[in-house]
Amino acid sequence: MEKVSIQRKFGLFTDYWSPKIVGELNESYVKLVKLKGEFLWHSHEKEDEMFLVVSGKLVIRLRERDIQLEEGEFFIVPKGVEHMPFADEETHVLLLEPKTTLNTGNVRNERTVEAK
Amino acid sequence: MEKVSIQRKFGLFTDYWSPKIVGELNESYVKLVKLKGEFLWHSHEKEDEMFLVVSGKLVIRLRERDIQLEEGEFFIVPKGVEHMPFADEETHVLLLEPKTTLNTGNVRNERTVEAK
Repeated sequence: MEKVSIQRKFGLFTDYWSPKIVGELNESYVKLVKLKGEFLWHSHEKEDEMFLVVSGKLVIRLRERDIQLEEGEFFIVPKGVEHMPFADEETHVLLLEPKTTLNTGNVRNERTVEAK
Repeated sequence: MEKVSIQRKFGLFTDYWSPKIVGELNESYVKLVKLKGEFLWHSHEKEDEMFLVVSGKLVIRLRERDIQLEEGEFFIVPKGVEHMPFADEETHVLLLEPKTTLNTGNVRNERTVEAK
Protein backbone atom coordinates (compact mmCIF):
# COMPACT_ATOMS: atom_id res chain seq x y z
CA MET A 1 0.00 0.00 0.00
CA GLU A 2 2.34 2.68 -1.30
CA LYS A 3 1.85 5.65 -3.56
CA VAL A 4 2.98 5.46 -7.18
CA SER A 5 4.80 8.18 -9.09
CA ILE A 6 3.89 7.72 -12.73
CA GLN A 7 6.97 9.55 -13.98
CA ARG A 8 9.31 7.52 -11.80
CA LYS A 9 7.76 4.26 -12.97
CA PHE A 10 8.21 5.25 -16.62
CA GLY A 11 11.90 5.75 -15.86
CA LEU A 12 12.27 2.07 -14.96
CA PHE A 13 11.73 0.53 -18.40
CA THR A 14 12.35 1.27 -22.05
CA ASP A 15 10.56 -1.42 -24.05
CA TYR A 16 7.54 -0.65 -26.19
CA TRP A 17 4.16 -2.39 -26.23
CA SER A 18 4.84 -4.18 -22.97
CA PRO A 19 2.46 -2.92 -20.29
CA LYS A 20 3.74 -2.90 -16.70
CA ILE A 21 1.32 -3.39 -13.83
CA VAL A 22 1.64 -0.52 -11.34
CA GLY A 23 -1.56 -0.90 -9.36
CA GLU A 24 -4.61 -3.03 -8.86
CA LEU A 25 -8.10 -2.31 -7.68
CA ASN A 26 -11.47 -4.00 -7.93
CA GLU A 27 -10.33 -6.80 -10.25
CA SER A 28 -8.62 -4.34 -12.59
CA TYR A 29 -5.01 -3.42 -13.20
CA VAL A 30 -3.49 0.00 -13.69
CA LYS A 31 -0.70 -0.38 -16.23
CA LEU A 32 1.89 1.88 -17.81
CA VAL A 33 3.04 1.34 -21.35
CA LYS A 34 5.37 3.04 -23.82
CA LEU A 35 4.11 2.99 -27.38
CA LYS A 36 5.77 3.75 -30.67
CA GLY A 37 4.61 2.72 -34.11
CA GLU A 38 1.64 0.54 -34.91
CA PHE A 39 0.06 -2.20 -32.88
CA LEU A 40 -2.48 -4.54 -34.45
CA TRP A 41 -6.21 -4.60 -34.93
CA HIS A 42 -7.90 -6.40 -32.08
CA SER A 43 -10.84 -6.23 -29.72
CA HIS A 44 -11.62 -7.40 -26.20
CA GLU A 45 -14.81 -9.41 -26.02
CA LYS A 46 -15.71 -8.63 -22.43
CA GLU A 47 -13.48 -5.79 -21.28
CA ASP A 48 -13.65 -2.02 -21.66
CA GLU A 49 -10.18 -0.47 -21.83
CA MET A 50 -9.11 3.03 -20.85
CA PHE A 51 -6.17 4.84 -22.51
CA LEU A 52 -4.92 7.98 -20.75
CA VAL A 53 -2.06 9.81 -22.47
CA VAL A 54 0.62 10.89 -20.00
CA SER A 55 3.00 12.28 -22.65
CA GLY A 56 3.15 12.28 -26.42
CA LYS A 57 0.32 11.69 -28.86
CA LEU A 58 -1.73 8.59 -29.40
CA VAL A 59 -4.04 7.72 -32.25
CA ILE A 60 -6.59 5.03 -31.53
CA ARG A 61 -7.80 3.87 -34.90
CA LEU A 62 -11.34 2.58 -34.93
CA ARG A 63 -12.87 1.03 -38.02
CA GLU A 64 -14.96 4.10 -38.81
CA ARG A 65 -12.73 6.92 -37.49
CA ASP A 66 -9.56 7.87 -35.62
CA ILE A 67 -9.43 9.15 -32.04
CA GLN A 68 -6.55 11.63 -31.62
CA LEU A 69 -5.33 11.88 -28.05
CA GLU A 70 -2.87 14.33 -26.57
CA GLU A 71 -1.41 14.63 -23.09
CA GLY A 72 -4.13 14.75 -20.45
CA GLU A 73 -6.77 13.19 -22.66
CA PHE A 74 -8.33 9.76 -22.35
CA PHE A 75 -10.56 7.46 -24.34
CA ILE A 76 -12.42 4.36 -23.28
CA VAL A 77 -12.64 1.63 -25.91
CA PRO A 78 -15.86 -0.28 -25.20
CA LYS A 79 -15.83 -4.05 -25.15
CA GLY A 80 -16.14 -5.62 -28.57
CA VAL A 81 -14.91 -2.55 -30.49
CA GLU A 82 -12.00 -3.18 -32.84
CA HIS A 83 -9.14 -0.76 -32.33
CA MET A 84 -5.53 -0.27 -33.34
CA PRO A 85 -3.30 2.04 -31.29
CA PHE A 86 -0.70 4.03 -33.20
CA ALA A 87 1.93 6.54 -32.09
CA ASP A 88 4.19 8.42 -34.44
CA GLU A 89 6.70 9.20 -31.67
CA GLU A 90 7.27 7.61 -28.28
CA THR A 91 4.14 8.05 -26.24
CA HIS A 92 3.47 7.18 -22.60
CA VAL A 93 0.07 5.83 -21.69
CA LEU A 94 -1.73 4.80 -18.51
CA LEU A 95 -4.08 1.88 -19.10
CA LEU A 96 -6.90 0.67 -16.97
CA GLU A 97 -8.42 -2.69 -17.74
CA PRO A 98 -9.71 -5.85 -16.04
CA LYS A 99 -7.12 -8.35 -14.90
CA THR A 100 -8.41 -10.78 -17.51
CA THR A 101 -7.47 -8.52 -20.43
CA LEU A 102 -4.96 -9.85 -22.94
CA ASN A 103 -3.07 -7.02 -24.69
CA THR A 104 -3.84 -8.40 -28.15
CA GLY A 105 -7.44 -9.24 -27.29
CA ASN A 106 -8.96 -11.70 -29.72
CA VAL A 107 -5.63 -12.17 -31.52
CA ARG A 108 -2.71 -14.16 -30.14
CA ASN A 109 0.64 -13.77 -31.88
CA GLU A 110 4.23 -12.67 -31.30
CA ARG A 111 3.04 -9.37 -29.84
CA THR A 112 0.96 -11.02 -27.19
CA VAL A 113 2.32 -10.48 -23.67
CA GLU A 114 1.31 -13.43 -21.53
CA ALA A 115 0.39 -12.80 -17.93
CA LYS A 116 3.20 -13.59 -15.53
CA MET B 1 -17.86 7.24 -27.35
CA GLU B 2 -15.82 10.43 -27.33
CA LYS B 3 -12.43 11.32 -25.92
CA VAL B 4 -12.23 13.33 -22.71
CA SER B 5 -9.87 16.22 -22.03
CA ILE B 6 -9.26 16.26 -18.30
CA GLN B 7 -8.26 19.92 -18.26
CA ARG B 8 -11.32 20.97 -20.25
CA LYS B 9 -13.62 19.07 -17.90
CA PHE B 10 -12.09 20.72 -14.84
CA GLY B 11 -12.93 24.06 -16.47
CA LEU B 12 -16.63 23.24 -16.35
CA PHE B 13 -17.20 23.30 -12.61
CA THR B 14 -15.98 25.08 -9.50
CA ASP B 15 -17.51 23.29 -6.52
CA TYR B 16 -15.42 21.27 -4.09
CA TRP B 17 -15.98 17.71 -2.87
CA SER B 18 -18.52 16.99 -5.58
CA PRO B 19 -17.14 14.36 -7.98
CA LYS B 20 -18.26 14.55 -11.62
CA ILE B 21 -18.55 11.40 -13.68
CA VAL B 22 -16.50 11.73 -16.89
CA GLY B 23 -16.26 8.12 -17.99
CA GLU B 24 -17.41 4.61 -17.25
CA LEU B 25 -15.88 1.23 -17.83
CA ASN B 26 -16.35 -2.24 -16.43
CA GLU B 27 -18.83 -1.25 -13.72
CA SER B 28 -16.59 1.59 -12.57
CA TYR B 29 -16.74 5.34 -12.98
CA VAL B 30 -13.94 7.75 -13.78
CA LYS B 31 -14.65 10.94 -11.85
CA LEU B 32 -13.02 14.34 -11.51
CA VAL B 33 -13.17 16.26 -8.27
CA LYS B 34 -11.81 19.52 -6.89
CA LEU B 35 -10.73 19.32 -3.27
CA LYS B 36 -9.88 21.97 -0.73
CA GLY B 37 -9.76 21.57 3.02
CA GLU B 38 -10.70 18.48 4.97
CA PHE B 39 -13.17 15.77 4.14
CA LEU B 40 -14.23 13.26 6.78
CA TRP B 41 -13.03 9.92 8.01
CA HIS B 42 -14.75 7.11 6.17
CA SER B 43 -14.15 3.77 4.50
CA HIS B 44 -15.72 1.78 1.69
CA GLU B 45 -16.63 -1.72 2.72
CA LYS B 46 -16.36 -3.35 -0.69
CA GLU B 47 -14.65 -0.90 -3.00
CA ASP B 48 -11.02 -0.01 -3.66
CA GLU B 49 -10.64 3.65 -4.64
CA MET B 50 -7.91 5.26 -6.74
CA PHE B 51 -6.82 8.89 -6.26
CA LEU B 52 -4.65 10.35 -9.05
CA VAL B 53 -3.49 13.94 -8.51
CA VAL B 54 -3.82 16.03 -11.68
CA SER B 55 -2.73 19.30 -10.06
CA GLY B 56 -2.00 20.47 -6.54
CA LYS B 57 -1.17 18.37 -3.52
CA LEU B 58 -3.31 15.85 -1.72
CA VAL B 59 -2.82 14.27 1.65
CA ILE B 60 -4.66 11.03 2.24
CA ARG B 61 -4.68 10.56 5.97
CA LEU B 62 -4.77 6.96 7.08
CA ARG B 63 -5.11 5.99 10.72
CA GLU B 64 -1.45 5.06 11.05
CA ARG B 65 0.21 7.46 8.58
CA ASP B 66 -0.27 10.12 5.91
CA ILE B 67 0.15 9.57 2.18
CA GLN B 68 1.47 12.74 0.50
CA LEU B 69 0.59 12.95 -3.17
CA GLU B 70 1.79 15.45 -5.73
CA GLU B 71 0.91 15.92 -9.39
CA GLY B 72 1.32 12.70 -11.35
CA GLU B 73 1.15 10.46 -8.29
CA PHE B 74 -1.61 8.09 -7.32
CA PHE B 75 -2.65 5.99 -4.37
CA ILE B 76 -5.17 3.19 -4.14
CA VAL B 77 -7.10 3.01 -0.87
CA PRO B 78 -8.00 -0.64 -0.34
CA LYS B 79 -11.51 -1.58 0.65
CA GLY B 80 -12.18 -1.31 4.35
CA VAL B 81 -9.33 1.12 5.06
CA GLU B 82 -10.34 4.32 6.83
CA HIS B 83 -9.09 7.44 5.10
CA MET B 84 -9.55 11.18 5.17
CA PRO B 85 -8.50 13.28 2.15
CA PHE B 86 -7.09 16.71 2.87
CA ALA B 87 -5.80 19.47 0.60
CA ASP B 88 -4.28 22.69 1.83
CA GLU B 89 -4.89 24.45 -1.48
CA GLU B 90 -7.25 23.66 -4.36
CA THR B 91 -6.28 20.28 -5.75
CA HIS B 92 -7.62 18.46 -8.79
CA VAL B 93 -8.01 14.71 -8.59
CA LEU B 94 -9.05 11.92 -10.92
CA LEU B 95 -10.92 9.16 -9.08
CA LEU B 96 -11.59 5.65 -10.17
CA GLU B 97 -14.09 3.60 -8.22
CA PRO B 98 -16.95 1.14 -8.68
CA LYS B 99 -20.32 2.61 -9.59
CA THR B 100 -21.64 1.52 -6.21
CA THR B 101 -19.23 3.76 -4.28
CA LEU B 102 -20.72 6.45 -2.06
CA ASN B 103 -18.33 9.39 -1.58
CA THR B 104 -18.65 9.28 2.19
CA GLY B 105 -18.47 5.50 2.36
CA ASN B 106 -19.81 4.13 5.62
CA VAL B 107 -20.91 7.59 6.75
CA ARG B 108 -23.95 9.45 5.43
CA ASN B 109 -24.27 13.12 6.28
CA GLU B 110 -24.49 16.56 4.69
CA ARG B 111 -21.36 15.90 2.64
CA THR B 112 -22.77 12.81 1.03
CA VAL B 113 -23.41 13.25 -2.69
CA GLU B 114 -26.27 10.98 -3.69
CA ALA B 115 -26.10 9.28 -7.06
CA LYS B 116 -28.19 11.01 -9.71
